[in-house]
Amino acid sequence: MTRLPDVPLKLFLDDRDAFPQLLVLWLLFLEPLRFRVKLLCRFSAHPEPESGSGFFVVDPSNPNFKDSRPMLNAKLAAKAHPTHRTVVRLTEEITIGDRQLLIIGGPCSVESFSQMEQVATRLKPIAVQALRGGVYKPRSSPYAFQGLGEAGLEILAAIRAESGLPVVTEVMAIAQIETVAAYADMLQIGSRNMHNFDLLKALGQVNKPVLLKRGLAATLEEFLLAAEYILSHGNPNVVLCERGIRSFDSHTRNVLDLGTVVALKQISHLPVLVDPSHAAGKRELVPDLARAAIACGADGLIIECHPAPEQSVSDARQALSLTDMVDLVTSLDPIATAVGRSLMRPESTSLERSVLTAC
Amino acid sequence: MTRLPDVPLKLFLDDRDAFPQLLVLWLLFLEPLRFRVKLLCRFSAHPEPESGSGFFVVDPSNPNFKDSRPMLNAKLAAKAHPTHRTVVRLTEEITIGDRQLLIIGGPCSVESFSQMEQVATRLKPIAVQALRGGVYKPRSSPYAFQGLGEAGLEILAAIRAESGLPVVTEVMAIAQIETVAAYADMLQIGSRNMHNFDLLKALGQVNKPVLLKRGLAATLEEFLLAAEYILSHGNPNVVLCERGIRSFDSHTRNVLDLGTVVALKQISHLPVLVDPSHAAGKRELVPDLARAAIACGADGLIIECHPAPEQSVSDARQALSLTDMVDLVTSLDPIATAVGRSLMRPESTSLERSVLTAC
Amino acid sequence: MTRLPDVPLKLFLDDRDAFPQLLVLWLLFLEPLRFRVKLLCRFSAHPEPESGSGFFVVDPSNPNFKDSRPMLNAKLAAKAHPTHRTVVRLTEEITIGDRQLLIIGGPCSVESFSQMEQVATRLKPIAVQALRGGVYKPRSSPYAFQGLGEAGLEILAAIRAESGLPVVTEVMAIAQIETVAAYADMLQIGSRNMHNFDLLKALGQVNKPVLLKRGLAATLEEFLLAAEYILSHGNPNVVLCERGIRSFDSHTRNVLDLGTVVALKQISHLPVLVDPSHAAGKRELVPDLARAAIACGADGLIIECHPAPEQSVSDARQALSLTDMVDLVTSLDPIATAVGRSLMRPESTSLERSVLTAC
Amino acid sequence: MTRLPDVPLKLFLDDRDAFPQLLVLWLLFLEPLRFRVKLLCRFSAHPEPESGSGFFVVDPSNPNFKDSRPMLNAKLAAKAHPTHRTVVRLTEEITIGDRQLLIIGGPCSVESFSQMEQVATRLKPIAVQALRGGVYKPRSSPYAFQGLGEAGLEILAAIRAESGLPVVTEVMAIAQIETVAAYADMLQIGSRNMHNFDLLKALGQVNKPVLLKRGLAATLEEFLLAAEYILSHGNPNVVLCERGIRSFDSHTRNVLDLGTVVALKQISHLPVLVDPSHAAGKRELVPDLARAAIACGADGLIIECHPAPEQSVSDARQALSLTDMVDLVTSLDPIATAVGRSLMRPESTSLERSVLTAC
Repeated sequence: MTRLPDVPLKLFLDDRDAFPQLLVLWLLFLEPLRFRVKLLCRFSAHPEPESGSGFFVVDPSNPNFKDSRPMLNAKLAAKAHPTHRTVVRLTEEITIGDRQLLIIGGPCSVESFSQMEQVATRLKPIAVQALRGGVYKPRSSPYAFQGLGEAGLEILAAIRAESGLPVVTEVMAIAQIETVAAYADMLQIGSRNMHNFDLLKALGQVNKPVLLKRGLAATLEEFLLAAEYILSHGNPNVVLCERGIRSFDSHTRNVLDLGTVVALKQISHLPVLVDPSHAAGKRELVPDLARAAIACGADGLIIECHPAPEQSVSDARQALSLTDMVDLVTSLDPIATAVGRSLMRPESTSLERSVLTAC
Repeated sequence: MTRLPDVPLKLFLDDRDAFPQLLVLWLLFLEPLRFRVKLLCRFSAHPEPESGSGFFVVDPSNPNFKDSRPMLNAKLAAKAHPTHRTVVRLTEEITIGDRQLLIIGGPCSVESFSQMEQVATRLKPIAVQALRGGVYKPRSSPYAFQGLGEAGLEILAAIRAESGLPVVTEVMAIAQIETVAAYADMLQIGSRNMHNFDLLKALGQVNKPVLLKRGLAATLEEFLLAAEYILSHGNPNVVLCERGIRSFDSHTRNVLDLGTVVALKQISHLPVLVDPSHAAGKRELVPDLARAAIACGADGLIIECHPAPEQSVSDARQALSLTDMVDLVTSLDPIATAVGRSLMRPESTSLERSVLTAC
Repeated sequence: MTRLPDVPLKLFLDDRDAFPQLLVLWLLFLEPLRFRVKLLCRFSAHPEPESGSGFFVVDPSNPNFKDSRPMLNAKLAAKAHPTHRTVVRLTEEITIGDRQLLIIGGPCSVESFSQMEQVATRLKPIAVQALRGGVYKPRSSPYAFQGLGEAGLEILAAIRAESGLPVVTEVMAIAQIETVAAYADMLQIGSRNMHNFDLLKALGQVNKPVLLKRGLAATLEEFLLAAEYILSHGNPNVVLCERGIRSFDSHTRNVLDLGTVVALKQISHLPVLVDPSHAAGKRELVPDLARAAIACGADGLIIECHPAPEQSVSDARQALSLTDMVDLVTSLDPIATAVGRSLMRPESTSLERSVLTAC
Repeated sequence: MTRLPDVPLKLFLDDRDAFPQLLVLWLLFLEPLRFRVKLLCRFSAHPEPESGSGFFVVDPSNPNFKDSRPMLNAKLAAKAHPTHRTVVRLTEEITIGDRQLLIIGGPCSVESFSQMEQVATRLKPIAVQALRGGVYKPRSSPYAFQGLGEAGLEILAAIRAESGLPVVTEVMAIAQIETVAAYADMLQIGSRNMHNFDLLKALGQVNKPVLLKRGLAATLEEFLLAAEYILSHGNPNVVLCERGIRSFDSHTRNVLDLGTVVALKQISHLPVLVDPSHAAGKRELVPDLARAAIACGADGLIIECHPAPEQSVSDARQALSLTDMVDLVTSLDPIATAVGRSLMRPESTSLERSVLTAC
């Protein structure tokens, strides 16, 4: 944007309570347009910033100041101060948003006990801390496989007990919440339900973490406001997940928007995962995108993998084989280190887990 | 896409020369749809694949086979075989597309000798091998700063002589090619000119490398075909550059499409750079996106930086300070190593350069 | 797409039952690519087309044949034959999809009895046959006005009784269906819930017509498949509504996609309405877009209007004043006539209605 | 956007010359956000609005006030006052932007004299006032048909002489301008060259009207600024053309953005044509979109038609047959009348033309 001519504009403010609005005005419009504004505040003292106010503390004398477009209404999802950061606890030992990255792996759909057992057996020894697998599947066509439902939940429960790995699965409707919450460690809201506001409100009253996927065409602000629905209804354990946005080129299924991942990490205190599988839609693109996601500061990954990808009942084209999944996770280690993060050290944790499972 | 029922379809082919078309038919449509096709080729021998044919050698028995949508007409831009790779030579010592990454830095616009000298002085000791700086500027508004023109080229030439760093600058019109090619080491085609076919044809007859930026809304196929225009008119030294595509969220200026970077590296043998500055449009997002680009396999970066970013005559909001640029480049080293690449070792090269400059 | 060289390809088909799949193959891929295909069907007779099969009857000898991309899975939403057309009955006297257009008017949100009464009083004498007004409002922010809820439904019921005009209102959750269906004549599914599959399934079991709005970034195929969810769960009375898709230019709130309206009318037998208010997002653009919608063959309009637009609690910027609404509806008459449609003749119908109300 | 709380903000302005900037500030930001602003202008008199200033004269007391987002830099392309309107003269008798609509028809590419003669013979008796036909073709692939070049121009010249119909053809490069301007009555800038700024500048010095097509992903503001390039370099005869923007659904080739056509007519004084052929990409969608374009206020149409559409060398899928073209143009008459416009009366005009041709 080109610089407008300087305008010797003076703003006077008579009402102390209106200061936040003025700040917004200034941040949003006057500063970015480089109006040279002289602010005369007639009241005696700056009001206390509300806790969780969603406004950045900005030092305008710093040319590299962080952001400029605070989200007006996402009071709870936005950072209260620059170092504000929330760590969500998945299990007693596994957290999301701290130094250690969270890697979630598993098939698009839970198909059988044997399928899930193969996945768990192969992923447990490496730095994968949780399993994914859909049992309620949002499908564009009513005639496509809709998931195993409760039978699938029982498979997840059995695998969870056997392997000690927590499980993440999608909930599509309010009526499913209670059952799913009884079996799963984290409830996923799919991209197509990011704007299902009644479902979001209901998840505000659940005491399990929620993995909220970004809508196909949701702006950063809408994404944060969807999180705000859950937060403001009582559940502070929200994890955001970028999974690609819809665009004009059909070569990739979606466009992975890592710029928004970076912006989310700067604006919000919530952890942010990345799903490169749905973004790419083609398995050969997944590993490189996964590495990019870690390099740009994501708090972890959720990746589709399957014992026999080509026979997957859904999203077969994007699932990694278990061998490729192991290779990928192994390759992440030096990148995590390069950006000040770490993967789980498999040895120690699997030991702790054995003990935990034994109890 | 769900699997269609098996169809016992048989295709017979009478004409040996039509085999490539049949292969395309099969790759594009029949295999992805999982039609079970039995191919009966009546001719005696498989034709030799044309060199540079653009068709992948695909082993359909491999469930992780690489791609499936070869680009029909980008014969020269597409890989002839899976390990096909082109290394473009920028100077005698600097190459693009080989193990060592290329980092290009500099301001959006060349403003003055002093500005460029500050940039060169600060960037030369680190792993930055080339300078950027626009002298012909494509601006949405006819009243915005249009660049210094030939005066800017002379500044670039002086800085190039003084620092020994090669320079990259944009050419907007056929009439500018000869002059710019006399001063610059690589000619950049901006995003808005990716579909300026007469300009592309003219660049096919230049013996300098061309940095071709992806159009604002160009598909991967259109991008490769734009490169094909240059290649097929005689210039084999084309470097592709992803710089963000247009999307619905104005929070970032564009959406950096790293999925297409990964796909380009798999489909084309040409080097691929990434411009995180234009993609993000905000300086605070640039370093994380730059790290992501290296992690996903890009061959280098082109980044806007300025001695006093906030005073930049154009794109001020996205320019890094020189200090931030130095920090960023330093941070890339472990990521490059993690993906089997390297940055220039500054010491030795600046030594070699001094010698070169002295000659 | 450029023409490929002719390929003398022959396809033989041994299995009579596989004919539909072959037809799809041919329509989708071979014909558009202009492969010269000779089809040899060895079975004795063409199978009967399934009723509601979703495949167009195509005469390939006609160069202007009507589409081209039958929707694979939208068996019930797609036309069974070229003249297939469904007329949905809103009340005993008002239908949708027949010669007479349906015009729905009213505010974004029901705010008060007085507000709705002003709307009904002003719109009843003109060719507006139904009222809209939201009582459950999907809002990006949890802190924005969420609608009056059941109090709003009671206002709608009172206005409906007083004016004799049927009412359309949005249902956001399964739990609201029963209550809303008791008050409203048509249930609206908003854009953000087009992919709320459990809600769609539940609406399949309601005996009121459903107004299904296209998702912000839903393809034509996804839109038809969302309708298919309702149809396949038992409710045949689905009315589609295009309301603008998300795009890159913020000058208009959305982009009204009339090309998809035209395509829907050719591919599906369901009625199609257009909502120019949400598409434009600015009231001064609404009337021209409304006229365009009628001219391209839409079955009617749903338009936001308000007694005092600038005081509307939601979407104030796009609401027409009642005066402007009257002017707009009046202006539609010659356009409707030009495309073989008509508006309700207000006199006679209001007479009939008075009789009806009197009963 | 929700209403912010009222802020008793006062703005004082000391400098009379800064008033335009203040107005922009107010229009762009304060009014839309509904800040209750009290403006105290200390200078004695309102400055005269510059002629062609690009700022709307807005009456804020009118709730239906027209626009809202004046284009900051498109001083010459924007209206100077609400009724500002430019009529561009194509020939002595044919104008664009006045009451009578301009309908341009013809093939994508000029292929032969016989082809163009069939087109002219069939279209001249109906309300088509000009012929189109490309001789320099922008094609994604370098191997696709690139147009007949000067041989095509000679065909156009011969047809023009024979039929008396003016011709419109595309110019892709500065080097082609002089030749094309010698043969054609209006020079078209294609979508892919809308941002080819050097070409735009060169067209500013031509004394023929320019038909400027909107870029694939150009915003309304960028489109107007592209026109501004031509206007500010000396050529006032610019006609805008919306031809569809790129979006996520491949069912239609592009999305026809009539909302922007309506906005352009409100913001700019330049005539606006619509190209439904490139927008739809499928001939069966073209007539309905053409009728919609006229209904929403476009000043005319440019439509692809061909004596044998299926044999067209380029864009075959979207070309109408000449019979369909005649039917379409005939169907436009009542819609034109409905919106206060007219088609050329063929009888009288062809008479006048014969006389003219005879001279």
